[in-house]
Amino acid sequence: MTDATLRLKKNGERRIRRGHPWVYSNEIDTAKTPLKGLEAGVQTTIESYDGKPLGSACVNPGALICGRVYSRSGGTPLDHKLIERLLKKALYLRETLFSAPYYRLCYGDGDGLSGLVIDRYGDVLVIQISTAGMEKLKQPIIDTLQKLLSPKTILVKNDSTQRALEGLDKYCEAVVGELAELTPLEENGVRFVAPLLNGQKTGWFYDHRFNRAQLSRYVKGMRVLDLYSYVGGWGIQAATFGASEVVMVDSSALALEVAGENARLNDVQSNCKTVQAEVLEALKQFRADGEKFDMVILDPPALIKRKKDQRKGEEHYHNLNQQAVQLLNPNGFLVSGSCSMNLSEDRLVDIVGTAAHRNQRTVQIVEKGGLGADHPLHPAIPEMDYLKAVFCFMTKNPVQHRTVESQTSES
Amino acid sequence: MTDATLRLKKNGERRIRRGHPWVYSNEIDTAKTPLKGLEAGVQTTIESYDGKPLGSACVNPGALICGRVYSRSGGTPLDHKLIERLLKKALYLRETLFSAPYYRLCYGDGDGLSGLVIDRYGDVLVIQISTAGMEKLKQPIIDTLQKLLSPKTILVKNDSTQRALEGLDKYCEAVVGELAELTPLEENGVRFVAPLLNGQKTGWFYDHRFNRAQLSRYVKGMRVLDLYSYVGGWGIQAATFGASEVVMVDSSALALEVAGENARLNDVQSNCKTVQAEVLEALKQFRADGEKFDMVILDPPALIKRKKDQRKGEEHYHNLNQQAVQLLNPNGFLVSGSCSMNLSEDRLVDIVGTAAHRNQRTVQIVEKGGLGADHPLHPAIPEMDYLKAVFCFMTKNPVQHRTVESQTSES
Repeated sequence: MTDATLRLKKNGERRIRRGHPWVYSNEIDTAKTPLKGLEAGVQTTIESYDGKPLGSACVNPGALICGRVYSRSGGTPLDHKLIERLLKKALYLRETLFSAPYYRLCYGDGDGLSGLVIDRYGDVLVIQISTAGMEKLKQPIIDTLQKLLSPKTILVKNDSTQRALEGLDKYCEAVVGELAELTPLEENGVRFVAPLLNGQKTGWFYDHRFNRAQLSRYVKGMRVLDLYSYVGGWGIQAATFGASEVVMVDSSALALEVAGENARLNDVQSNCKTVQAEVLEALKQFRADGEKFDMVILDPPALIKRKKDQRKGEEHYHNLNQQAVQLLNPNGFLVSGSCSMNLSEDRLVDIVGTAAHRNQRTVQIVEKGGLGADHPLHPAIPEMDYLKAVFCFMTKNPVQHRTVESQTSES
Repeated sequence: MTDATLRLKKNGERRIRRGHPWVYSNEIDTAKTPLKGLEAGVQTTIESYDGKPLGSACVNPGALICGRVYSRSGGTPLDHKLIERLLKKALYLRETLFSAPYYRLCYGDGDGLSGLVIDRYGDVLVIQISTAGMEKLKQPIIDTLQKLLSPKTILVKNDSTQRALEGLDKYCEAVVGELAELTPLEENGVRFVAPLLNGQKTGWFYDHRFNRAQLSRYVKGMRVLDLYSYVGGWGIQAATFGASEVVMVDSSALALEVAGENARLNDVQSNCKTVQAEVLEALKQFRADGEKFDMVILDPPALIKRKKDQRKGEEHYHNLNQQAVQLLNPNGFLVSGSCSMNLSEDRLVDIVGTAAHRNQRTVQIVEKGGLGADHPLHPAIPEMDYLKAVFCFMTKNPVQHRTVESQTSES
C-alpha cells in the first residue's frame, strides 16, 4: 500500500459514504491529489473533501472507475490477510447454500473483491481478473486459494474485453496443475462436462442455475427447442427432467459435440438432437418445415453490449422473440433470457408481450428469474444484476369474430 | 351482453390496442357514448375512436377503471362458455406446474378474468370478487367450478376493501357445502391447516411459496425469527427444513394457535415457539434481552396501501428492517419481504442496504424473489407484480480502524 491518498471532490463523497465502492476519475480533487503518476493497481487511502479518511481502494489512474474501495478504513492494505478473510467469507456463503462444490465462488464487488471472478468446478478453479488492482494481487489470490481449497488446477482466464479498459493484456494460463480438455460439474443434480479453456467465458454459465432448475416443473413430455444451446445447460436439463425431445441449436461444432457428450452422461441421448447453425437460419428452416415445439428456450448472448447498441440490440431481441413465438404449439411456453445489463426486466417483459400480441397470442408471465445465489449483489450497484429469464405461457387467441353492426355508426 | 357500446377517445385507444385490458373512465368519449345510465357490471363492446370494435368488456360506470376487456372481439359475451374456457386454461396451467391441488387457481387479469381470484385448497375453493362485472357472473362462475372440479366446499369471501370502489357490499358465504374451521393444504411438501373464514385474505398466502421454498437451502441448524408469522407459513417451513429453533411473532392469538397446530402437523413443535405481541414491542423486548438470531424473516402486511402513505410507509419499512438487522448474529441472514405494490424491489434493496450500512454491516443480496407461478402476470399491468422477498447475507464489518496520520493534513 502506498502512502499516497486520493481526495474526493464534495459531490463525489456522498455515494462513497453511503457504501458504494466505485470512485470515478472526475470525482477526484486532482488539484490537491493528482492521479497522474500513480502506478496502475496501487492501493491508496481515499479521503473526504475535508481530508478525513473514508476508506482504502485499489486505484487505476487510467480507468474511468479509478478507485475501487475494499475497506471502509483508511490505510488498510488489501493483503494476504484481507484477501483470505474475504475469500473465506465467500466460501462460507456458498458452502451454506450449495451442497456440491460447483458454483461461482467469487462475484467481484458482490464479494468485496472488485475485479475478481472465480468459478469453482470441484477441484478446478477458474479465475478472471478485470482490474489492474486485482492483476497486481494475482499471486496472493492464488496462494490463498491453494491454502483454502488445495485445488488440483487453477486456470487464469484473463481474456475478457473489459481488461482493455484497465490497460491489461489478454492471456490464459494454467498457473497450478494441468487442465483436462473437459471438466466435470453438476448443476441441479444433472451431470455435465464443460470445455473451460476453449469454451465461452469461464467455460460454463452458473448464472442461470436457478432458472434452469425451474424447468423441472414444466418440461415433462414436452418437445423443447433450446436456441443458443452452447453445451446444453438448458437443453440437457430439460431432457433429464423429462422432456420427450430436445433440439439444441448452436453455431459452434465444439459446443454441440460437448452437448452430445452431456446427453450421454445423463443417458438422454435418444431424446436429444443437435443442429449446428446460426440461430436465425435455423429459425427460418424450422418455420419452413412447419416444426412446432411445446417450449422454446431463447437464451442469446448479450445483444446490447454497450449503450450505443441499445436500439439495434433491442430490435434483435424483438426479432428473435417474435420468431421463437411462431414455433410454439397453440399452448406453449417461451423461456426468454437476456444477459444484457442494458436490457431491463421490464423491457424484456415488454418485448415478449409485443411478440405475443403480434402473433395473436395471449401471454401470461408465469415466472421471472435472475442470478443464482452464488452471484451475490452489492445493493448499490444495479449494473451487477444483468441476468433475466422470463417464463411465459403463450396461448392462441380464439378467433371469435362476431361483427357488431347495430352500434358502429356515428351517433 | 347489452347492445350498448363504449367509444374510446383517440388518446385512450393505443394502450387498449396494444393489449392492456383496463379502460379508464376519462378515456371514454361520453359525448358519443354516455357511461351514465349503464348498469354496473354490464357487458358492452368497446370501440375505437372511429367506431371500429376493439373488444368486449365488463363495465362499471361508477368506477375509475370503468371497463375491463375480456375479449378482443366486439359483441362477445362473457358467458358460461367463455368462463369455462378461461377457467379450464387457468387449471391447465396449474396442473402443468404443480403436483398437488393447492394453489391460486385464478389470478384476475393474469388469467383473463379481471376482478376474480380463486384459491384452491384441494376440494375447497375460496372465491374473491372485486368488480361489479364479476359479481354479476358469480353464479356462472360457481356452476363452472362445480362442473370442472366438483369441490366439496365453495366459500365466497367478498370482504376486501377494494369492493367499495366498485360500489359492492362486503359479505362472506359458503355457497356450496360447509366449511370446517381449519382447512388442510400443502406447500413445498410441508403440511398446514389454515383458518379460511377467520384468517387473513383468502386464509393463506400462496404468493410467497417459491420464496419459502428457498429457505430449505439456508436454515439448517439456524435459530430463526419469523416476524408477522400469521399461521407459520415461513416459520414452520424453516423448522421443517431443519432450523434448530424458530420463534414466531404475531399479534393474533388465533394465528399463533394455528401456527402451533401446524408445528405439530410436521412434528417440529419442540423447535417452535410463538410470541403473541405487536412486532415493534417484540423487537424492543428481544433487544433488551440480548436475543440473537441466524435468520430474521420480516414479512409485514402491506405498509403502503395507497400512494399517499408512501413516505410514512417507507419509514415504517426502514424502521422494521433496521431493527431486524440489530437482532442478527455477526453472520446472519435477513429475509425482507414486502407485499406493497407501491414499494419497488429497488427501493426495498435500498432499504435493506441502508439498514445494513447504519448498523455497520456489509450486505450481500443473495436472492430476490417474487410471486409464484400460480400468480401469472399480464405483461402490461405492472401493478399485479406486488410481491418482493430479498434474501440478504449481513456480516459485521471488521473493526480495523487504523488511523492514517501522515496524509490527513491539508496539503
